[in-house]
Formats: sequence, C-alpha cells, structure tokens
Amino acid sequence: MMDATIHPVPGVRLGVAAAGIRYQGRDDLVLMTLPADATVGAVFTRNAFCAAPVTVAREHLAQAAPRGLLINAGNANAGTGAPGRQAADRCCELAAAACGCEQEQILPFSTGVIGEDLPTAPFAAAMPALVADLAEDNWPRAARAIMTTDTVAKLASRRLDIDGVAVIVTGMSKGSGMIHPDMATMLAFVATDVAISADLLQSCLQAAVADSFNAITVDGDTSTNDACVLMASGASGVTIESADSTAGQALFAAVADVCAELARAIVDDGEGATKRVTVAVSGAASATEARQVADTVALSPLVKTALFAADPNWGRILAAVGRAGVEELDVERVRIWLDQVLIVSGGGRDPGYTEAAGQAVMDQHAFSIRIDLGRGEASSRLLTCDLSYDYIKINAEYRS
Amino acid sequence: MMDATIHPVPGVRLGVAAAGIRYQGRDDLVLMTLPADATVGAVFTRNAFCAAPVTVAREHLAQAAPRGLLINAGNANAGTGAPGRQAADRCCELAAAACGCEQEQILPFSTGVIGEDLPTAPFAAAMPALVADLAEDNWPRAARAIMTTDTVAKLASRRLDIDGVAVIVTGMSKGSGMIHPDMATMLAFVATDVAISADLLQSCLQAAVADSFNAITVDGDTSTNDACVLMASGASGVTIESADSTAGQALFAAVADVCAELARAIVDDGEGATKRVTVAVSGAASATEARQVADTVALSPLVKTALFAADPNWGRILAAVGRAGVEELDVERVRIWLDQVLIVSGGGRDPGYTEAAGQAVMDQHAFSIRIDLGRGEASSRLLTCDLSYDYIKINAEYRS
Repeated sequence: MMDATIHPVPGVRLGVAAAGIRYQGRDDLVLMTLPADATVGAVFTRNAFCAAPVTVAREHLAQAAPRGLLINAGNANAGTGAPGRQAADRCCELAAAACGCEQEQILPFSTGVIGEDLPTAPFAAAMPALVADLAEDNWPRAARAIMTTDTVAKLASRRLDIDGVAVIVTGMSKGSGMIHPDMATMLAFVATDVAISADLLQSCLQAAVADSFNAITVDGDTSTNDACVLMASGASGVTIESADSTAGQALFAAVADVCAELARAIVDDGEGATKRVTVAVSGAASATEARQVADTVALSPLVKTALFAADPNWGRILAAVGRAGVEELDVERVRIWLDQVLIVSGGGRDPGYTEAAGQAVMDQHAFSIRIDLGRGEASSRLLTCDLSYDYIKINAEYRS
Repeated sequence: MMDATIHPVPGVRLGVAAAGIRYQGRDDLVLMTLPADATVGAVFTRNAFCAAPVTVAREHLAQAAPRGLLINAGNANAGTGAPGRQAADRCCELAAAACGCEQEQILPFSTGVIGEDLPTAPFAAAMPALVADLAEDNWPRAARAIMTTDTVAKLASRRLDIDGVAVIVTGMSKGSGMIHPDMATMLAFVATDVAISADLLQSCLQAAVADSFNAITVDGDTSTNDACVLMASGASGVTIESADSTAGQALFAAVADVCAELARAIVDDGEGATKRVTVAVSGAASATEARQVADTVALSPLVKTALFAADPNWGRILAAVGRAGVEELDVERVRIWLDQVLIVSGGGRDPGYTEAAGQAVMDQHAFSIRIDLGRGEASSRLLTCDLSYDYIKINAEYRS
C-alpha cells in the first residue's frame, strides 16, 4: 500500500517505539493520542478467555473519555490470570503519566503469543521515546509496529467532502491468521476528524464491522484479543448529527469502505493464503441459515485445499452445503456457481458445466463461490482464503 | 492388522472382484450375502446431498429384508442427480439377479470421487466373478477392496462365549479423511452370527456408533456417503432377546468394542495424521455444551497444527475453549490438562506447569487433552488427529 494515500487525521497523533517486548530491532509499541473532546466506539472479542487488556479497555471505556490507546505487538497478555491484569493496569498507568491524563483514559491493546507474562519494564523504558515521537503522520510506521505474523502493513484512507469541508477517515489493521484467527490476531484502529457522539460513532462502527471484519472471521470466531476501535477527533469542525443525514451517510460509507479494505487486506495476507474467495449465499430462508451455509463452505478444509490446488472439485462444495445443517434442504433447488459458471443444479452437476470453464475461474487469484439455496430471500457473504502448506508451516513453527 | 485375528461370521459370505470402476489392477467391488432370516441395522449420513446409493439403501431397508450388500470403491455416485439414481438401481438389479433375490433386497454402497457418473457396465461384467468368489473368510480381501485414500485395511473381530456357544462379531471399515470426512468417506460393515430382531440390532448399532464413529466425525459431520451397517446372520443358534440380558450385554459390548477399534483405525489412518488425540471435556452444564467445546478444540486448525508440531502451545487450546460459545463461562474455574499434566487453572497457566512436562506429553503418538469446565456433570469425548503437510498434499492432489 502506498504511504502517499494515507491521510493523517487531524487531532490524532501516533508515537512509535522499539520497546523490545518480544521482537528485537523493530518497532513494537504504539501510542495514539486523542483530543479531550474526541469520541470513541469499540467492539471486542466475545472469547470467554479474553485477554487482560480487553477487560481493562472495556472497563475504561465505561468509565471515562479515552485520551490514549497503547498497543503492543509480540505478547498478547492473554491467559495470564491476575498478573496479566496487573501488567495491563501498569501499562495504562505509565501511559497516563506520560500523556498527562487519568489511567482510566488509556485503552490498552496487545497482540502476540498467549500465556506469557507481559513485562512492563520495556513499556516504562520506551515511554519517553513514544511520547517524543507523537505526530499525525505516523500511521504507516504504526501499522508496521503492530504486525506479528503479518507480511504486509495494512492501511486504508479516504478523504471525503462534507459540505465543502475535507473530512478524513484513516485506519490500520493487523491480522494474518484469518482461517481461524490466530491466538491474538485481529486489531483495527480507524480514526476520523468529524465531531460525532459516542453512541452514533458506535453504530457507525458496528455497521461497518458487520460487513468487513465480522465477515472474514468466518465462524463468528474471535481470538482472545480481537478489537476494533473507531475514533473521532472533531478537528475538522464537521459535526455528524445523525446516520440518515447526507453527511452521516457519507461518513458511514467511508468508514465501511475503510474497514472493508482493511479486512480484505487481512484475507490477502492470510497465513499461507494464495487465493481470496468470496462465499456468497443467497435464497436462504433466514440470515442465520445463509450464514451457516457460508460458514460451513468457507471453513471446510476440503474446500480450502481444493482452492489451494485450483481444483474445481465442486463435489466438496456440494458436500459442505449438504452438511451445513439446513433443515429439509431441497437439493434439487440448490444452484452453485464459480463466478458466473453454473456448476450444480438439479441435485448434481449442471448439464452445461465443463471442467475447463470451472478451471478458468479457479485459476484466478480472487473469485466467488455463489450458492443459491432456492428457499427464500436471505443472504450472507464471507471472504475466505485457501489452506496451503504454508498455513501448516506458519502455525506449526510459530513458537519455534 | 493380522488377518489371523479376523473370525469369519457363519452365514455371512463375501465376494471380491476387480471391476475397474476407477482403479486399475486392484479389487474395488464387494458383494456380501446374508441368509434369508438375517436381520440388519443401519445408520446413514445426514448430509442433504446424500449419494444415490444412500437413498436407495434407505428405501430398500424399509421395503424388504436384505439378502445382499454391494459395495464399490472409486466412485461415490454422489452429486449425480437422476442418472446416479438409475445407476444405483441398475447395480441392485444386477446383484439381485446374481443372488437370486429381489432388487429391493440389495443394499448399495459407493465410496470415492463425487460428481462423476457411475458406469454400470463394469458391475455387470464383474458379477459372475463376484458371485463365484463368495466365501465366509474373505473379510481381509474385502476390507482392502473398499479402500480409497486409506493406507491400511481396517478390520476388527471378537469371539465371545454366550451360554457356552461361540459367537462372532467381525467388522471392516474404510475412511481416511476424518478431520472433515472426505467426500464420500466412511463406510463400516459389522456382522455377527446371533439371531436378533431388527429393532434390537438397530439399538445395538446406534449405541455402538455414538461412542465410536460418531465420536470421530468431529463436528457431527457426515459425508455424502457415510454408512454403517450391522448384520446378524443367526447362524450361531444363539438368540438375543433383550439388551439387558447377560447375552445381550455381552453382544452389545462386543459390537461397541469392534466399532471403537474400527473408528480408532480410521483416526490412525487419518489423512496425513501423525498423532491420535483424545479430547475429553468434563464438568459441563449439558452434554450439548460438552460436545460443543470438544468439537471446537478438536476441529481448531491452530490446535491441530500445534499437535503436528508437538508444540505444547496451550494458549491455542484455551482460546478454542473460550470461543466455543459457552454462555457465561467462568474462566477461573476451567482446568485443562495434557494427560495428567495440569496446564491451565485460575484463568491462565497453572503455577505448577512446566514446558518440559507439557512437551513430554505432546511427544507421544497418542495422548489426551482434558478440559474440565467446572460447571456441571456432563461430559463428551472425541478422537481427533493433527493437521499436517500431508493433509494438504493428499487433499490438494486427490484428483490430480
């Protein structure tokens, strides 16, 4: 991604440092600061074993208006019990002292290996450098600093015109294990310079996440540390009063767009991924049913290995649809396409299907598996990737 | 498995032939015949896209007492629509003519690639040889003939004494993709020479399957062709009147035992598998909840790749438990062991845990992941295997 396309967000500053928490010789710590009147929305993992920083961030959000976000890579501070909580608290205390705010105004985020105690001394040592580094144009460096198994930094940015005023939406994300998200995988931070109430900002975030990050964590899966934060600095002077206003619609669309781009980047950087595949289910009796079929197909190791082999082995797609748990599915009405190529109809291979046509679709880097269940009007759409040797390599050797 | 331990089942004969349906130069077709007063129980896939032979076998079972089972490897006759149904009917017609029984007394089974039309000419051509080959001691050859990606034939046999009479329970199975069963994966055929009503035999089969074949198909997953059949020839002269009688208990135990051994053999021969791991969940509030947690852990690609690496990366187990969807899980009460080694307590790593102790367990070929949720009395147990490079290789190259 070209750094040139990443617009700083007025009012939002980022500091980056190499704290040596786990990695040596690279940046691994980010501090983001917000103006006093900024608003923040956030969504977190639903994992019961959520990490200490997630617990702390949730509590702090309920207590005070955030002024700072502290993000470290290399250690997830998850599965760390009471000492983990103490470490997260201590990190907030350090950042608050450095920023001149209350401890409750800091939101902590961690990503990396689970189950290892998080040392806080590196945070204390790095804090002066972090604060000295604060600047609005540090997004690209920050995006690199939060990477773990990611192979590319993930950034997206939009400049929109609202009533003649330029408004910015810029975000970064990290995450590379998307098949089942890795231990402490997905973080995303998106900022804008509009003024907007925290409630409205939260709606904006939830709408954007539903069709982006929640449509790549393919089983509603959530790691111990997943979090997505949307910040609004207010610095543009543009105020968003409602979601339905022209300005509100423009902002919501831009946030959704940035989230979708960041989510796609995670799939493209999926561990070992060589393909990016949209699984689109239509004609379902309910949204739940549509998602259930999309999940089953998108998660199937047999479908995923066929994607890796670029093998139009449609029998695996059909078998996955058949076992997705749809009650009284009439297989005669199910149709399955690869892009525009109809492969299944009437309970089996469509008479017009040719292997050559299927192969041509599968040979692409990105394509769609479309499934119409012929039962109703509901639909669902997920992004998935293939399952390759490199997925095994990355995950069998992650700690080595 | 030593052929010497496989006892023929009086009254049950098997014929084997090389029909060249897909494979060349190897046996691929089996006919099993039963006496007129035999009883049969069966369980089938719940996949909505079930194969034509499954539909036909279900119908025939409801219509008549089976006299013959016809099993082919290499082509699953699944996803084949109306022509697939015609092919399955034609195979039954051929076998019925050869056996001198009605078409409805033949049960067809197919395993192999999905979505290719099943040619019936090879069946017609092979039928005389198949019938000429019928013999009670052909179990080992039959077990080899039904293999697809299996690397070993799977057989189990017990001789028990019921009131001074020797009674036999012998079975064979095939299946090598167990993680998500391959397209048309799991078939098992078990026979005994007791006399028993079809209803009681069906209960016996269902009890045995619940703790064997259904405890390895780790998400309740079923391929398009899965089937397990239990036959009773009555030839021993021993009659089983009830499940509670001494004789009934002995028979049920032997059938369960044979099914468990055949199921273990499938996991051991799992595609690319190098480990056989029991996931045992206890302390759950309900059996559904216990199974849900066991499924999530046993299916997790991250857990499975850690198993392959023999890496005691317990954070992945903890994360899988946390995302299994258990409502209001108190993570403080969850305990996780590798065999007898306690790894997680109090929401994180147990203070007494050492990496060396965890490593020693993981270095074994077979071991247990035990999870106590601390919420109730329900439990569940699954067998799983690791996810290796060879799984990818086998499934990315299956059709090549």
